[in-house]
Formats: sequence, C-alpha cells, structure tokens
Amino acid sequence: MTDADRVRAALQTIFDADTGIYQGRGFQRRVGYGSRPALVHIDLANAWTRPGHAFSCDGMETIIPAVQALNEAGRAKGVPVVYTTTAYQDVGGPNSDMGLWGRKIPCELLQLGSEDVEIDSRITPADGELVLVKKCASGFHGTNLASYLNALGVDTVVITGVTMAGCVRHTTEDAIAQGFRPIVVREGVGDRVPGVVEWNLFDIDAKFGDVEALEDVLSYLDGIEPFTSRAGPQPASAQRA
Amino acid sequence: MTDADRVRAALQTIFDADTGIYQGRGFQRRVGYGSRPALVHIDLANAWTRPGHAFSCDGMETIIPAVQALNEAGRAKGVPVVYTTTAYQDVGGPNSDMGLWGRKIPCELLQLGSEDVEIDSRITPADGELVLVKKCASGFHGTNLASYLNALGVDTVVITGVTMAGCVRHTTEDAIAQGFRPIVVREGVGDRVPGVVEWNLFDIDAKFGDVEALEDVLSYLDGIEPFTSRAGPQPASAQRA
Amino acid sequence: MTDADRVRAALQTIFDADTGIYQGRGFQRRVGYGSRPALVHIDLANAWTRPGHAFSCDGMETIIPAVQALNEAGRAKGVPVVYTTTAYQDVGGPNSDMGLWGRKIPCELLQLGSEDVEIDSRITPADGELVLVKKCASGFHGTNLASYLNALGVDTVVITGVTMAGCVRHTTEDAIAQGFRPIVVREGVGDRVPGVVEWNLFDIDAKFGDVEALEDVLSYLDGIEPFTSRAGPQPASAQRA
Amino acid sequence: MTDADRVRAALQTIFDADTGIYQGRGFQRRVGYGSRPALVHIDLANAWTRPGHAFSCDGMETIIPAVQALNEAGRAKGVPVVYTTTAYQDVGGPNSDMGLWGRKIPCELLQLGSEDVEIDSRITPADGELVLVKKCASGFHGTNLASYLNALGVDTVVITGVTMAGCVRHTTEDAIAQGFRPIVVREGVGDRVPGVVEWNLFDIDAKFGDVEALEDVLSYLDGIEPFTSRAGPQPASAQRA
Repeated sequence: MTDADRVRAALQTIFDADTGIYQGRGFQRRVGYGSRPALVHIDLANAWTRPGHAFSCDGMETIIPAVQALNEAGRAKGVPVVYTTTAYQDVGGPNSDMGLWGRKIPCELLQLGSEDVEIDSRITPADGELVLVKKCASGFHGTNLASYLNALGVDTVVITGVTMAGCVRHTTEDAIAQGFRPIVVREGVGDRVPGVVEWNLFDIDAKFGDVEALEDVLSYLDGIEPFTSRAGPQPASAQRA
Repeated sequence: MTDADRVRAALQTIFDADTGIYQGRGFQRRVGYGSRPALVHIDLANAWTRPGHAFSCDGMETIIPAVQALNEAGRAKGVPVVYTTTAYQDVGGPNSDMGLWGRKIPCELLQLGSEDVEIDSRITPADGELVLVKKCASGFHGTNLASYLNALGVDTVVITGVTMAGCVRHTTEDAIAQGFRPIVVREGVGDRVPGVVEWNLFDIDAKFGDVEALEDVLSYLDGIEPFTSRAGPQPASAQRA
Repeated sequence: MTDADRVRAALQTIFDADTGIYQGRGFQRRVGYGSRPALVHIDLANAWTRPGHAFSCDGMETIIPAVQALNEAGRAKGVPVVYTTTAYQDVGGPNSDMGLWGRKIPCELLQLGSEDVEIDSRITPADGELVLVKKCASGFHGTNLASYLNALGVDTVVITGVTMAGCVRHTTEDAIAQGFRPIVVREGVGDRVPGVVEWNLFDIDAKFGDVEALEDVLSYLDGIEPFTSRAGPQPASAQRA
Repeated sequence: MTDADRVRAALQTIFDADTGIYQGRGFQRRVGYGSRPALVHIDLANAWTRPGHAFSCDGMETIIPAVQALNEAGRAKGVPVVYTTTAYQDVGGPNSDMGLWGRKIPCELLQLGSEDVEIDSRITPADGELVLVKKCASGFHGTNLASYLNALGVDTVVITGVTMAGCVRHTTEDAIAQGFRPIVVREGVGDRVPGVVEWNLFDIDAKFGDVEALEDVLSYLDGIEPFTSRAGPQPASAQRA
C-alpha cells in the first residue's frame, strides 16, 4: 500500500460516515445535466500543467487526455469552450492587479504575457474560443464569464482543470450560485498536494455540483442537440430602417 | 482514541505532508490583519444552531461563546457586525428563488419568515446590525455585502459560522477576491459531518485567508482604533445651497 | 402649447438630429424579443406611486394600468414577475446600509418595513412572486436577480417602473450587460421631473434595449409559449438511491 | 446662435425647472471627495478619440488635455490610474463574446488586438497602469475593477472619457453602487451626438455622482496625501517561517 493509497483509504472512511449523515438529511442530490452545456477549463496553462513551476500540478497524464476528449465531443456539437488562466499585468509595482491574493500565494510568478500563463499547447484553444484572464480563484469573479454564458443560453457548465482546492472549487461554487448546473469531470481535475482532490470532490458532490466520470460526460455530450447560437451578432436586415 | 480523534490524526498526517509542499513553493502566506474590520457571522440561525433540523450543526457549545466574545470586543470599538441567513420566499412554487441549489441540498426546509431562519437569540443582532438573506453559499453573492463593507471603508472581514464546507468557505473565497482580508476564527466555525472543518480550514489557510485562534482575534480587536464612519448619511449642511 | 409640449418639441428636434447620426453609424439596432421573458417592475412602491412623498412620481394614471395589463398577460403564460423596492434597515445609524447613496438623494426617507416602501396595492404581487429589496439604482446590483432569472432560463426582461432617470435606466443597462434582452415599456415608465423620461428612453433605445409600446409587448406575451420551469426543486425520485 | 447653442439653451430651461423640483425634495446632494482617489478613463482608445470611425466622438481638443492634466496631477501623488477599452475576441463567430450588445450597437467593429481599441497615444498608460478590456458599457461589469480598487483602499473614482450617454454613465452608476464616490470631470467627458453630454451630466449630478470642473479636481489632487499602497505583494519576511 503506497502513501497515496493510505491517504485515500483514510479519507474514504470519513467520506462513508459523512455520506450516511448527508443522505439521511437530504443532501447529496443530483443537479443533473441541462440541455445547453459549455466546457470550462480552469487554469490549464503551462505554469500548472508543466513540471518545474511553483504552480505545477500532478495528474496531467490523465487530465490532458480527458480535456482533449471533452473538447472533441463538445466541438462536434458546437458547444462553447472557455479557458481561464490566472495572470497579472503588474506583479510587483504600486498598481499591482494581484489584489490581496499575492499575500497568500506566489502570484508574483504569473506574469501576463509570459509563456507560463499560456494555455498548454496540447489543448490549445480553437479559433474564437475564449481565454479569460482572471485575478482570483473563480473563473466567474472579475470576468465576463457569467454574462457570456448567459447570453449564449448556456444552462450547464462542464468543469475541468486545476487546482481542485482552489480555482476549480471556487468556480464550481460560483457556477451554481449564478444559476448554471456544474458538472465536474472526475478525470479532468487535479492539484499539487495529496488528498485535496478527494476531499474537495466530496464537498462539491455533497453541495455544489455533480462529480461525474469522463465516460458519462462524453455520453451526455454525444447525446445533446447541436448547439445553435441564440445571441449572435445582429443580422443587417434586422436593423431599423 | 475516539473516531473523531482517529479522523483528526489521519488528516493531520496529510496536512503535514501538504504543508511541506506548500511552503517549499511559497504558498500558505499570511494575508494579515488590516485596520478596519467587520465581523461577518454566517448562517448562525436556528436551523443550523439548534438540534433537530436537517441543517443542524455540531459545536455550538464553542461557536456561540466565541461569537459572543467577538461581538462584545467588536461592538466596543464600533465595528460593523453583519449576520447572514439563508432563506427562500417561494420554496416550492413556480417562482422559486432557490435557483438550482434545491437540486443539491434541502433548501425547501428554509422558509423565509420562519423561526428556523432567524438568527439564534443567544447572539441576537443589536439595533442597526444587518441581517442579510442570501440564496446561495456565499454571503457576498446576490447581496449588498461587498458594497456595504466597501462604503464603510472596511478592509478586513472576521468570519465565523457554518457550514465550514459550504457557506463559510465560499464566503471566505469571495472575500479575498473582492479585496477584503479574510480572517477565519478557528473556534467560531463548524459543520455537521466529521472531517470537513479540518480540511476546509487547511485549504483556506493555504490559499484564501488566515485561520486564527479566537484569542488572537480578540487581541486584535482590542488593539484597533475605534471605528468611525466614513460614509454615513449626508449632513444637512452639506446639501447644495 | 403647454410647457411640457414645448419641452417635448425641443427634445424631439435633438432626437431627430441624433438619430440621423446614430443610424448612419449602425447604432439603434433592435435587440429583439427572446422566448422566455420575465416582467421586472422597478420601485412601484407607495413612496414613488402615491402623492406627497419626496420620491413621488408622475404618470401613475398610465403606468399602473400598463403594469396591470402586463401582469395579466404575463401571469396567463406563467412568466416570472419580479418587483423591486428600495429600502434601508438602518437609515441613519453607524451601520447604515445606504452605502454612499444617501449622500446624493434622500434615502433616509425609505425605511425598510414602512408602508412607503411596500409595493402599491393596485399591483400587488401574487403569491410566490418576488419582491427584491435593493440598496441602489439597479435591480441587479446587490440582489439575486441575475441568478434568479438565469436559473429559470429567462432570456428577456420586460421592464417598467420608476424612475426613468435612475433605477429603470441602471436596471436596463445592467440587464443587457448580464445577457438579458431588455424591453422597456413606454407607457410603463415614469419620473418626477420633466424631460428625463424622454431623453433616457432615447439613450436606452439607441444603445441598451428596445423601447416598445405597451400594445406591442402585450401582443408578444400573448404569442409566447407558456413558461414551464427549468430549475424547480429536485423531485424526490431524483435523489441518489 | 448656433444649433448647438440653441440645444443647450433649450436643455438649460428644462434643467432649471427640474433643479427646482430636485432641490425642494432633497436630491442633488454632494457625495464629496474622499481621501484615496483613482483616475478611471473610459474608452479613450483610437476608435473613440480619432476621426473616421463609427465610434468617433467629439470634443477631443478639450478631453485629451484634461486627461493629460489629471494624469500628471494624479501620478505626482501616486494614485492608481486605470484605463478601459471595449474590445471583442470573437466579433462574429459562434463563440462571440459580444453578448447581446452587438444587437444594439456596432460592436463588430471593435476587434481585440486592433489599433482601434488601443488607448490613444497622447494619453498612453504609464508602466504598470491597468488597461481593462470590457465587453459592455460599465467599466465595473465583467472586470476586476471593483476588486482592484477595493484592495488598494480607493474610496473615490475620478471619471473621464466617452461616451457620456453610454459607458461613462453606466460606470458612474456602478461606482456609487459599489461604494466609491464618483467624481465626473466636466471637461473630461464627451459623446458623438448633440445634447447627450448635457442631459447625462444633469442626471448624474442629481443622483449618482458629483460633476466637477477640471480645475476643482486638479486642486483636489494637489491637496491629497501621496497614495501609499495598502495591499501590495507580501514582503518575504512576512511569510510563515
């Protein structure tokens, strides 16, 4: 039994006990899939996906193929694909846009425009797909993500990325608060320290969104109607005469 | 060794390993105290603080006295004290204001106007102290909390309440995102299932806010300058002639 | 020719000139109606709809019947109906929730719980219809309005109320920013000083939403599919086994 | 008497009548200056400041020097200077980030990365000063502006730019809603059609912020204490041992 196995076993014991309490009280329900999903990939930029950076995360051998499979399935249906990265224009100066976050974590290593904060080339955004630069954990906070999804009539956000204890969790909490159904893809999320993936998935599934297997999410995407725009640019003929 | 002790010991082993990684990489910094705090008490209403409800939480024998002590120290300095509760106007009808949250947790048991969603009488709000009714986990989401604190010049939010895995965590994440220093009071927070207080405090202290002992927070409140308003109502003499 | 007529004539001259410029440049397009509307009535509470208050507005002989007609048409289709009012819990004390707005306008006259801030009884909310208490001009700011509408799958907000130069305008601007199609009902909006209804409707129609005649909006509501919930409470059978 | 003079005279007649009503009722108060201002310049990018574009505005012979003077005075005190521009990554495609705004105004002409949406070189941002890319009228909506200002302890926003009937107005309304004192600089704002500068300044001064002369704002900036950071990056020595 490896250390990781032991951690997982210890946590599973807790989860089992907690699940009993939650279910007896009516928690851990299913938010379920809606009909118009978007894919939201959190912070899968080089600082997180490649080794050797303070922000590097584990599990990319599973996460990257999962995201590739989701993108293929989603793009086949024309669903919106959104990426986030975290980056700062003024990492150390008097106008620093890091807010207070640099007082907790090493934000000073995430310079806007650097290769570190670019989306990993193995899952590079297609033409027109958005890359949102955020300054804090949630992909919704201080960005136009909610407005963007709302204008497109999206009702479900399929979430992948890192870190599970940080940006993925906060994004998921915000998603349901904003009125989107959060689906977190189990094989699509990761972190950089042991244990936190498991306990954050547990908390999320109990209260904020559905944690689903990649296979299940791919089946869902295969089954939906192709995504047609509801809020595209105004056709010239619709202008006032 | 009780079950709870075993859980705590298992988690501590994980936390110690994770702490080594975090500190080697520059995480787990201190956000620190600012000079103008507010107290924010999350969901300390009867459904959570009293036994026998689906939302009932443990640990009130510690949490309630901690909140009482904080309120006494804070009110002595005139700092704003804010309470939240979670409640819904239309819990089952076609206009339901539960959003999607009722699809994960039993929101239908939190009727606006019921005794269940009233703040616990042992820590009843003083005249003028705000009670914000929220519809989701974060005290900032869908409320005027950020605007309220900002207009008063607050720079630090001292957070207590329940649940640690839900509303307290999401509120803390939003606080630092909004530009407020989050201080989570260790003795002032709780939950209803084992383990989640510990792992959520660990995640928060690593990334989102400082987890501090009650004694330390009380010393801080004793040491600050009395809070004087910066944005009160317009004096008549300041009106345009 | 009355004074009001002269004002309207002078403004019309300006509007005609501006319209030429706007249309030559591709402004004043039509946002159009979507398929899932909600009615949003701004601040039609007694302080605004009845005479004798600092906030009293003109035109209620037209606005109230317009709102009654919209409610009848909307309720027949089951569309969500939302009201706002502006009110403060602590109008003068050290915890004042007026933010900075009391430094511009007499917010101290809008006490939460008073008859002044109750919705006018001629257009009283039906069971389950929301009344949102806001602290600033926009119905979206510091409230759960966007989340509420989003969770219900609303794509269009039909807006009435007062004042045109304040809360109705800000609400309309926020609506399109959030991804909702704003439809402002010409006969359903008013204000308390001459001219501002006309120029704010002009600005809105140029840039933020469509200003439409009551008759046109009623026809639209008559023609839509009945509104069926997309995000209601979780049926018991959908809970995890 | 030119046409513009006639428009201004007609509007002044209305404003005088309205002012009587407003002041009799306690509106048109002064929000006043705070102690920690930021400068916020709205959409002073080439599409708006240079001739020949659908978005071109008038009055740059006054606006540009006003902004230059404000920047000089503000930078001398170290106050944060923020610029906004409006630009879209996918102006016509299926992932369009224009939301619904392209259905009202010609957003398709504002391509992210084009010279059109770059800040005018006569008022080019200094190193470290933020340029926020927004998707809708308000500089606060869908951006980190509120969080940024809040983390820096800003209490006052000095606003310039274009257009008065669009982005400047919505930004001002949001500023006071968020708890910042809005000061709109009369010589620093403009638009592209006659009349709208005047009536929007009138509405703003009545309800949302103080409209002040450039000279007055420059005196204010000269008189404040130099701006020292409150929330900068964490000093290494403050990290946990």
